[in-house]
Amino acid sequence: MIGRFKNEGKIFYGKIEDDRVIVDRGLYCDTFLLSELEPLPPAQPSKIICVGLNYSDHAKELGMPIPEKPLLFLKPPSSVIGHLGNIVYPDKTKHMDYEAELAVIIGRRCRNIHAADADSVIMGYTCFNDVTARDLQKEDIQWTRAKGFDTFAPVGPYIAEAALDVSDLRIRTRVNGEMRQDSSTSNLIFDVPSLIEFISGIMTLEPGDIVATGTPPGVGELVIGDEVEIEIEKIGVLKNSVVQSIPS
Amino acid sequence: MIGRFKNEGKIFYGKIEDDRVIVDRGLYCDTFLLSELEPLPPAQPSKIICVGLNYSDHAKELGMPIPEKPLLFLKPPSSVIGHLGNIVYPDKTKHMDYEAELAVIIGRRCRNIHAADADSVIMGYTCFNDVTARDLQKEDIQWTRAKGFDTFAPVGPYIAEAALDVSDLRIRTRVNGEMRQDSSTSNLIFDVPSLIEFISGIMTLEPGDIVATGTPPGVGELVIGDEVEIEIEKIGVLKNSVVQSIPS
Repeated sequence: MIGRFKNEGKIFYGKIEDDRVIVDRGLYCDTFLLSELEPLPPAQPSKIICVGLNYSDHAKELGMPIPEKPLLFLKPPSSVIGHLGNIVYPDKTKHMDYEAELAVIIGRRCRNIHAADADSVIMGYTCFNDVTARDLQKEDIQWTRAKGFDTFAPVGPYIAEAALDVSDLRIRTRVNGEMRQDSSTSNLIFDVPSLIEFISGIMTLEPGDIVATGTPPGVGELVIGDEVEIEIEKIGVLKNSVVQSIPS
Repeated sequence: MIGRFKNEGKIFYGKIEDDRVIVDRGLYCDTFLLSELEPLPPAQPSKIICVGLNYSDHAKELGMPIPEKPLLFLKPPSSVIGHLGNIVYPDKTKHMDYEAELAVIIGRRCRNIHAADADSVIMGYTCFNDVTARDLQKEDIQWTRAKGFDTFAPVGPYIAEAALDVSDLRIRTRVNGEMRQDSSTSNLIFDVPSLIEFISGIMTLEPGDIVATGTPPGVGELVIGDEVEIEIEKIGVLKNSVVQSIPS
C-alpha cells in the first residue's frame, strides 16, 4: 500500500508496512510511525472522471438497458477529501446519497492508450465515494451541481499497487455499521482497461487523475451524524462522517 | 492587459503595454518585447465551470424557456489551449461547433461569495471558445465527452483586469473572416456576480479557475482548415485554427 502524508509542512508518498511508513529519499529511506503522520487524500487529481451506470446488477435493479459505451461525467478537484474527513451536508439538498466505487489512480501522463496497455499508466487502486445530491441530480440536466459540492469525493485511505488483480473484488458500503451495498467488481460492464482506452481517447490523463468506475446496486441516503464506510477487498476501508454545514 | 508567458523555461505573468511586457519582480521590473516571449493560455485552471443556455436571445432562438437557475457543467483542464493554438478535430465526431463565451478568471481561493462581493475574487476577463462535438452531445446524456476533448477549450489571448465593466460588451465569432455570432453580454440571463455567487455556493473556487458564461445565438460548425476568431470588445481577439487529428 502507498499513502500520501503530511509531516512538518512537507507532503510526500510513502510505502506502508504494518504500522510504519517507509519514504524513499533516493540514496536512503526515512521511516515513520503511521500514527505520527497526517494522512492526506492519496491523490491530488487535475480531474476526476466518473462513469455512470457501470454495474450490470445496478442497471438490472433500475430496469435500464446495459449502456453501449461508458457514460462519463466530471467531479471538480475541490470536492476531494481523504479517509476520516467529514462529508459536509449542503443546505441546498434534501437528499444526499453514498455511492461506493473502485477508483483508479493514474500514474503517468498519457493519451490514446489501448486497453492491453492500460496497466502501464495505472499507479494503483483505492476506494471512492461518489456522494450525490439525488434531488439536485433529478432537477438539473447535467450532474455537475449534484455531484460537485465540496467534500463530495471521499477517496482513500491508501493506494493498492497496480499489480493487484481488480477483476473480482468484493465492494461494500456500510452506514453506521449496517451493510447497504455488497457486490463485486466482476459485475462491471466496462472493465478498467476498457475505461482507460475510452477516456484516454478523449482527454489526456495526468498523474494523480482519478477514474471512478461506477457504483453497484443499493445506493441510499446519508443523514447528518452518519458514518459511512466503503470497503473494497484487498484495498481497504474508506471511512467518513456526515456533518452539518456551517452557515456562511 | 495581463498575459502569461514562457521565456527561457520560466513561466510568469506580465503587464502588456503596447509592444512590451512589464514583469514585476518585487523590487524592480523586467521589460521584454511582446514578440520575444512565448504566449501561454492566460490561466491554468484547476477546473473550468461552464454555464449552459445563458443568453436570452439564444434561448429565444432555440424556442426554450429562460432557465430559473444556471445550468452548470465542467470541462477538464486538459482541454485548454491558448491563442493561436490548434483545435484538433477528433476522429470520433462528425460535427464540431464553436461557441463564443466571456470567461471570468478567478483571482483568489473563495467559497460562498455574495454577488455584491464578486469583484473581489475576480482576477479579470478573457475570451473563451466552448468547442463542442454536437453529435456526441446529443448522443450522450452528460456533456462531458462532447465538450471534453483535448484542445476543446481555447482561452485568451490576455486577461482584461477586473475593473472592466462587462455588463454590455459586444461578443462576436468570425470563421474565416465571416461573422457568425454577434451579440452583447447585456443579454446574459445570469450576470457574472450572480454566477460567482451560485457557483461558489457549491464548490470552492481556486486562483486560475475559469467560469465560462455561456454562448449567444449563432453557434455553428467548424471544419478542418477553418480559422475561428472570438472577439470581445475591450478584451481582445482569440484566434485558433482547426487541424486534423494525427492517428495514434
